[in-house]
Amino acid sequence: MLTKTSVDGSLRALRTLRLLVLVSLCVFISVSAASSPAQEEDSAMENIVTEKKAEESHRQDSADLLIFILLLTLTILTIWLFKHRRFRFLHETGLAMIYGLIVGVILRYAVQVPRDTIVVSACFVNSSPATMLLNVSGKFYEYTLRGEFSANDVKDNEMLRKVTFDPEVFFNILLPPIIFHAGYSLKRRHFFRNMGSILAYAFVGTVISCFVIGLLMYGCVTLMKHLGKMGGDFFFTDCLFFGAIVSATDPVTVLAIFHELQVDVDLYALLFGESVLNDAVAVVLSSSIVAYQPQGDNSHTFEAMALLKSLGMFLGVFSGSFSLGVATGIVTALVTKFTKLRDFQLLETALFFLMSWSTFLLAEACGFTGVVAVLFCGITQAHYTFNNLSPESQDRTKQLFELLNFLAENFIFSYMGLTLFTFQNHIFNPMFIVGAFLAVFVGRAANIYPLSLLLNLGRRNKIRSNFQHMMMFAGLRGAMTFALSIRDTATYARQMMFSTNLLVVFFTVWVCGGGTTQMLSCQRIRVGVDSDQENSMSFADGSERRSTKQESAWLFRIWYNFDHNYLKPILTHSGPPLTTTLPPCCGPLARFLTSPQAYENECQLKDDDSDLILTDGDISLTYGDITVSTDATGARTSGGLATDDLDRELAYGDHELVMRGTRLVLPMDDSEPPFTDHLRM
Amino acid sequence: MLTKTSVDGSLRALRTLRLLVLVSLCVFISVSAASSPAQEEDSAMENIVTEKKAEESHRQDSADLLIFILLLTLTILTIWLFKHRRFRFLHETGLAMIYGLIVGVILRYAVQVPRDTIVVSACFVNSSPATMLLNVSGKFYEYTLRGEFSANDVKDNEMLRKVTFDPEVFFNILLPPIIFHAGYSLKRRHFFRNMGSILAYAFVGTVISCFVIGLLMYGCVTLMKHLGKMGGDFFFTDCLFFGAIVSATDPVTVLAIFHELQVDVDLYALLFGESVLNDAVAVVLSSSIVAYQPQGDNSHTFEAMALLKSLGMFLGVFSGSFSLGVATGIVTALVTKFTKLRDFQLLETALFFLMSWSTFLLAEACGFTGVVAVLFCGITQAHYTFNNLSPESQDRTKQLFELLNFLAENFIFSYMGLTLFTFQNHIFNPMFIVGAFLAVFVGRAANIYPLSLLLNLGRRNKIRSNFQHMMMFAGLRGAMTFALSIRDTATYARQMMFSTNLLVVFFTVWVCGGGTTQMLSCQRIRVGVDSDQENSMSFADGSERRSTKQESAWLFRIWYNFDHNYLKPILTHSGPPLTTTLPPCCGPLARFLTSPQAYENECQLKDDDSDLILTDGDISLTYGDITVSTDATGARTSGGLATDDLDRELAYGDHELVMRGTRLVLPMDDSEPPFTDHLRM
Repeated sequence: MLTKTSVDGSLRALRTLRLLVLVSLCVFISVSAASSPAQEEDSAMENIVTEKKAEESHRQDSADLLIFILLLTLTILTIWLFKHRRFRFLHETGLAMIYGLIVGVILRYAVQVPRDTIVVSACFVNSSPATMLLNVSGKFYEYTLRGEFSANDVKDNEMLRKVTFDPEVFFNILLPPIIFHAGYSLKRRHFFRNMGSILAYAFVGTVISCFVIGLLMYGCVTLMKHLGKMGGDFFFTDCLFFGAIVSATDPVTVLAIFHELQVDVDLYALLFGESVLNDAVAVVLSSSIVAYQPQGDNSHTFEAMALLKSLGMFLGVFSGSFSLGVATGIVTALVTKFTKLRDFQLLETALFFLMSWSTFLLAEACGFTGVVAVLFCGITQAHYTFNNLSPESQDRTKQLFELLNFLAENFIFSYMGLTLFTFQNHIFNPMFIVGAFLAVFVGRAANIYPLSLLLNLGRRNKIRSNFQHMMMFAGLRGAMTFALSIRDTATYARQMMFSTNLLVVFFTVWVCGGGTTQMLSCQRIRVGVDSDQENSMSFADGSERRSTKQESAWLFRIWYNFDHNYLKPILTHSGPPLTTTLPPCCGPLARFLTSPQAYENECQLKDDDSDLILTDGDISLTYGDITVSTDATGARTSGGLATDDLDRELAYGDHELVMRGTRLVLPMDDSEPPFTDHLRM
Repeated sequence: MLTKTSVDGSLRALRTLRLLVLVSLCVFISVSAASSPAQEEDSAMENIVTEKKAEESHRQDSADLLIFILLLTLTILTIWLFKHRRFRFLHETGLAMIYGLIVGVILRYAVQVPRDTIVVSACFVNSSPATMLLNVSGKFYEYTLRGEFSANDVKDNEMLRKVTFDPEVFFNILLPPIIFHAGYSLKRRHFFRNMGSILAYAFVGTVISCFVIGLLMYGCVTLMKHLGKMGGDFFFTDCLFFGAIVSATDPVTVLAIFHELQVDVDLYALLFGESVLNDAVAVVLSSSIVAYQPQGDNSHTFEAMALLKSLGMFLGVFSGSFSLGVATGIVTALVTKFTKLRDFQLLETALFFLMSWSTFLLAEACGFTGVVAVLFCGITQAHYTFNNLSPESQDRTKQLFELLNFLAENFIFSYMGLTLFTFQNHIFNPMFIVGAFLAVFVGRAANIYPLSLLLNLGRRNKIRSNFQHMMMFAGLRGAMTFALSIRDTATYARQMMFSTNLLVVFFTVWVCGGGTTQMLSCQRIRVGVDSDQENSMSFADGSERRSTKQESAWLFRIWYNFDHNYLKPILTHSGPPLTTTLPPCCGPLARFLTSPQAYENECQLKDDDSDLILTDGDISLTYGDITVSTDATGARTSGGLATDDLDRELAYGDHELVMRGTRLVLPMDDSEPPFTDHLRM
């Protein structure tokens, strides 16, 4: 019943013998077994042994974590050198992977640690309980379920098992800050301007990509079965699952280069927006496909009822997570609007952080998808709450999530590199890998090109063919694909998927990521676009402004009007007073909800109100009393404060830059440097 | 052998019967047991059950964590209200405890969740392994050791067990940022000025307090044994251990009020410095006492050899942790000095964070005390690295650790409140509690009064009796005492200590913390001391400055000269060039190590060099190119920028406030608002 396996090679036989003598069985049903006083002395010695063991285990854990910290430190120093020398072929994530690979090789082949494990067999219990109590001579030790354990792991290196994190860590700890940061730093104005196209790519495109890849892989798998190259089961739902998880794009490398080279803002917005939203779609899609699986009888037929159920689940989970995320965002906006929390920046930042985190926990506790909720919470926070925060807290929250994002992202990528050698159940099947690379390529093409064609019918500002090629090329896979694949590696199919996905990520990050500058010049995409100039021009040129206005879609215009007339005034200090936008019957409510600042700014508002599209970002910044903003690196905007009037009074104190009687051009972008807008006061 | 205990009251008998049928034994030694193909279908169903169970458990965990997040949110909102209304009787930590108490009551009496646990008995295994594999019909499930489990927990509420965190969480996750922040925000100038007294209180005082409390408690315990009021063992080493953990003071509440009311800077420095350092002493002291225990034969005699060994261990662990902390601080300082990492603030901040964290892990991996290492790392980072950081990163790092400190501190205090009702092994012994309160009081008095008397013999600037009373009164207990007591609650003695310590913390935080303002006015301690004024006066008045100089101790002067002439020039961009301070033979090395900025600043330096003591903080800020600093709340200094010259050019951009031809008084404190220094440029 009890076996202690110590895996020290030569010593194994000897130890097994010794254990056979030591270990025997004692059968009793114990609801509560108190230790007798006679055992006291013995148990003191046991206690010490247990403590020593726990201490040893804690030391080992610290050392393991230290490996990752030092890896990240090394990555930071190297990436600084690269940035310093303007070397753009390798992004920090790519570098983190390389260092991870190196450490993985070392751990695999150079370090051997024996394990300290007991194997307990329970033949007639049909499932594994969440908690297990081990009764060792009257003392109970509590054990918690860590997950299923592949039988062949037992004979392997303990060190490799040690550096293997619980896969749920990625999903519950590392991914949320990354996704929240993506939502929080979404360039809202350009995002909303291209909202229709982004939604099309993210929703329709991801579903197309998922099914195209799924079908192609099903063909590949069927062929492999015929050729006898398949060592286990691989069902149609597995193929679809593969399609879903590999459809989550993560062009962080490409976007960093775009940002640095100041590539066209619309291309940036399209790519960034798509990558942010398709993560959410891929997560919910994959979980819906998993939920479909049990209904299937392991055959290839896709039942209509089950399909509908899965579809319903997709919509339910997606909309549930969406609503939860938006709801907590709105609650935070209301709290920050109606309290004077902004006088205490630390409290404000802490509240913001906790509310954003609680979104994740709330969604998970309700059975929705935390990551999706967090994404929409981030977007809502950026769109409303951000404007209510004090400038200090705006800086702080941006910088905090930027740091968390940076650390989490590089941690994931270095872990990816490490896991190529330390993961113990890799299945590299050459045929499957070639098929997967082809399918990923075709799937991306089937997403971008047909959709662009359709979208161009409706768009005034067409998505040119070089933009399409660039988007095709920028379909990198990253953290989300990895987190989704490592989550479950119990079956043969999942193990093969995991190994293949690792290679897909490596290839796209290194090859596509590294070739971005070449691709840009090859496709003749304009770099060094100063969005300031572009906007100043539109400001100056009335006709161009009008064309921009017409170009925006009806969907956007309806949303914009609703947002500007009702949501912004309710949730922030900006926008027109609700007393002017709501029907007269709501008078008292409108007066209660409208911020005093909104009345003050009413006159100014009329001026800008006509400029519907271009001032979306600006309005929120003008009518709040937020006057200094940050760029994506969190640095105070470095464009300089160009004053063109001598009669000025400049007081820098109390967190506010107050300017009276001055005409001032202040760079005022609210998230990414490439899109610096001019604000005229 | 296997028992499934489900604690649903009425259903228990029925289920036990059903389990008796289900559960039986199968004896085999399994090194690797592969599941047979025939079991495949069954195992698919099992998989689903396991997944469902894991999902359920994950949901529950999310909900539990959500409770704490919402508790913290509530605390933040309430504390904002208090601050808004200038209500000073209750600090946020005290409030967090109250909310924790309320939630604890609700969880205890209102929520009942059945448990899902298997009890496995292993009679002939003498210790608990770190990992256990449960073999359920050929599938292995991995379980990790969570800790010892008290037998009487089995019958209790699952919910209470769920909200009980692994005690190591406090020590390894929540305490490090608190301690690092304390070190990082130590007001260095006033700290160094009072260094001798602070070290005396922290080292000698804590040891005195530990032994006085230990002896008094031993008396109390002996009395209790005679009266038959003691339900278990309580050895002399337990008494000493209690003395050590209860000697760690944490006057966070008092310091917050001092800060707000601008109490005398020296009193603030003494209290803060003592509380920061005595945490480190208490940790190492308690671990040395625990290490002593095994040698003792459970009798009351304290063997000389074992005592020496414990003392050696104390010195070894303390100096090891100290060196590790200082070493990583120095490495960070060198890295930030010799790379131009400051051009990329995100990388700089991330590096700073990772290096500081690695100190903790490194110390733990080496068997030293991470918390102590982190404290000295924080002090070193503040003293050297901080000056090499870009102003942006100075802000960011301060704010980041401030936020982490705030969250961790309030989390611990709310958990303290909660645990009063949810902890399942409380032992409240009225006699022990009364004895403990008395001992804590006497111990604090035996620390403060005799030491102050001795110190006053050597100090020019005496510690007046009202200051002594205030320090006596401000001996609050907090996070460190709690974390040390909850770490091990296996024995009767430890359980009683834990319960008693909770009460000590509650009492001191609420009563002493709440009565601080009354005590200040009762002791006639001056509040509203504007340290700016005080310093400006000393600046203006030459004679007073000289007296300050004489007043500083020889210890401080030696340290100051060494630090100023060698360490600062090596580790930062400030200080005199090494070429002037090192002997000529070290020429090339000196030239290599000296920063170019040091030469530039050489002429300016001569001016200030005479002002040995008062410019300690200023030098580092003047000769680096750091020009905007932060106060303790992380807010940009709000004192305003008073220009007294009309011919000015003020450019705010590129993270620098450049002032030419201007005479400017800029508030320039580097950590706490009460000590604002004036910097003249």
